[in-house]
Amino acid sequence: MPTLVLLRHGQSLWNLENRFTGWVDIDLTAEGEAQARRAGQLLKAADIAFDRAYASVLTRAIRTADIALVECAQLWIPLVKDWRLNERHYGGLTGLDKAETAEKHGEAQVKVWRRSYDVPPPPLAPGGAFDFARDRRYAGAPIPDTESLKTTLERVLPYWASEIAPKLGAGENLLIAAHGNSLRAIVKHLFAVADSQIVGVEIPTGNPLLVQLDASLKPVAAHYLDAERAETLPPLP
Amino acid sequence: MPTLVLLRHGQSLWNLENRFTGWVDIDLTAEGEAQARRAGQLLKAADIAFDRAYASVLTRAIRTADIALVECAQLWIPLVKDWRLNERHYGGLTGLDKAETAEKHGEAQVKVWRRSYDVPPPPLAPGGAFDFARDRRYAGAPIPDTESLKTTLERVLPYWASEIAPKLGAGENLLIAAHGNSLRAIVKHLFAVADSQIVGVEIPTGNPLLVQLDASLKPVAAHYLDAERAETLPPLP
Repeated sequence: MPTLVLLRHGQSLWNLENRFTGWVDIDLTAEGEAQARRAGQLLKAADIAFDRAYASVLTRAIRTADIALVECAQLWIPLVKDWRLNERHYGGLTGLDKAETAEKHGEAQVKVWRRSYDVPPPPLAPGGAFDFARDRRYAGAPIPDTESLKTTLERVLPYWASEIAPKLGAGENLLIAAHGNSLRAIVKHLFAVADSQIVGVEIPTGNPLLVQLDASLKPVAAHYLDAERAETLPPLP
Repeated sequence: MPTLVLLRHGQSLWNLENRFTGWVDIDLTAEGEAQARRAGQLLKAADIAFDRAYASVLTRAIRTADIALVECAQLWIPLVKDWRLNERHYGGLTGLDKAETAEKHGEAQVKVWRRSYDVPPPPLAPGGAFDFARDRRYAGAPIPDTESLKTTLERVLPYWASEIAPKLGAGENLLIAAHGNSLRAIVKHLFAVADSQIVGVEIPTGNPLLVQLDASLKPVAAHYLDAERAETLPPLP
């Protein structure tokens, strides 16, 4: 039975500043690094032998994987980095803080973008400070200019199906270090969460979620390694 | 013209203690981390756009690559980890410090093992504290139980030929973060250094060696990015 561990990265500088980060490559703070180390110690205590790790192409997720893997003495495993595990792309909200967003768009509208399943913010204007289309790491990739949670899922899940699920099917134990919304996509898929419910599923930062899968990749058990900071999990499907 | 950068990891705890480290997975010290950061700043100043990085399966080399790539904002590139880029395997000397080695084998014999091209130390006894054959990271690999510099080359160079050279041939710019002796193997090959000369080639730690290659992967220019700490390079072939 393959084991899957989902790990949401900890605090970044823009988390602190309450800015819409999305695809901007903001690094962890010292507290975010400490969260990754604690996560790695929990992985060590749980004695999980990983075969492979995955992360987005964003530094805060890659470093979370690396720091945690150092702690559990498994930095040597392959780590695959792919943009399809990135955080949700916040389009024109990228870089704005809470006050700026409310001033520009009104609080009610911002709430809709944050809490709806399928309403994306306005697209990111090309040529600005955050023109990801000109970033070498996305060369040739069909990247979006804004995303709802739904369209985030629509690029995470094909990657899950084509790259990740086959490794689990081959019996590999995997670590995925990523972001609130790309991990929501995987949780929605695994636990068969309804569209209307998934926005309410909050994966805590730095707390490894261990999912035991059967041969058909159906979850048969799941728990957070730090039980004291665990959010309620969706029921097993 | 592809660019190749060779980066030798900086200080580890056992460097400080003067122990034969070889394949033992000893981490960097704080000074070793600082050396990797400085190397990354030199890579940033040199404005090299890497396509891929390679490291051994030893934490001190992988972390050197990761830390340097963070500094030059390229942690997102693929990093391939392979045991064939490991440090030379010191066989039965593994873990011994200078005094212990001299006491056990005599200084003259130790000098032969250190400075000869093709005389390996006695093999590592199986079942001891450093039984790499039982380490999961080498599962299924035809690993040695001791190595001379010559036999180190004999596992580095097939990897170079089958995995690394084709990427350079395709025009990729590569970073290789590894160890004194695995990097010697690559330098010996690229610069056509004689067997009798290669032991005298010392690659400084934490100082990126930039090699410009032509389409046939012959070096046409080479220099250390920190010119003040540069050792003499072999002449261009």
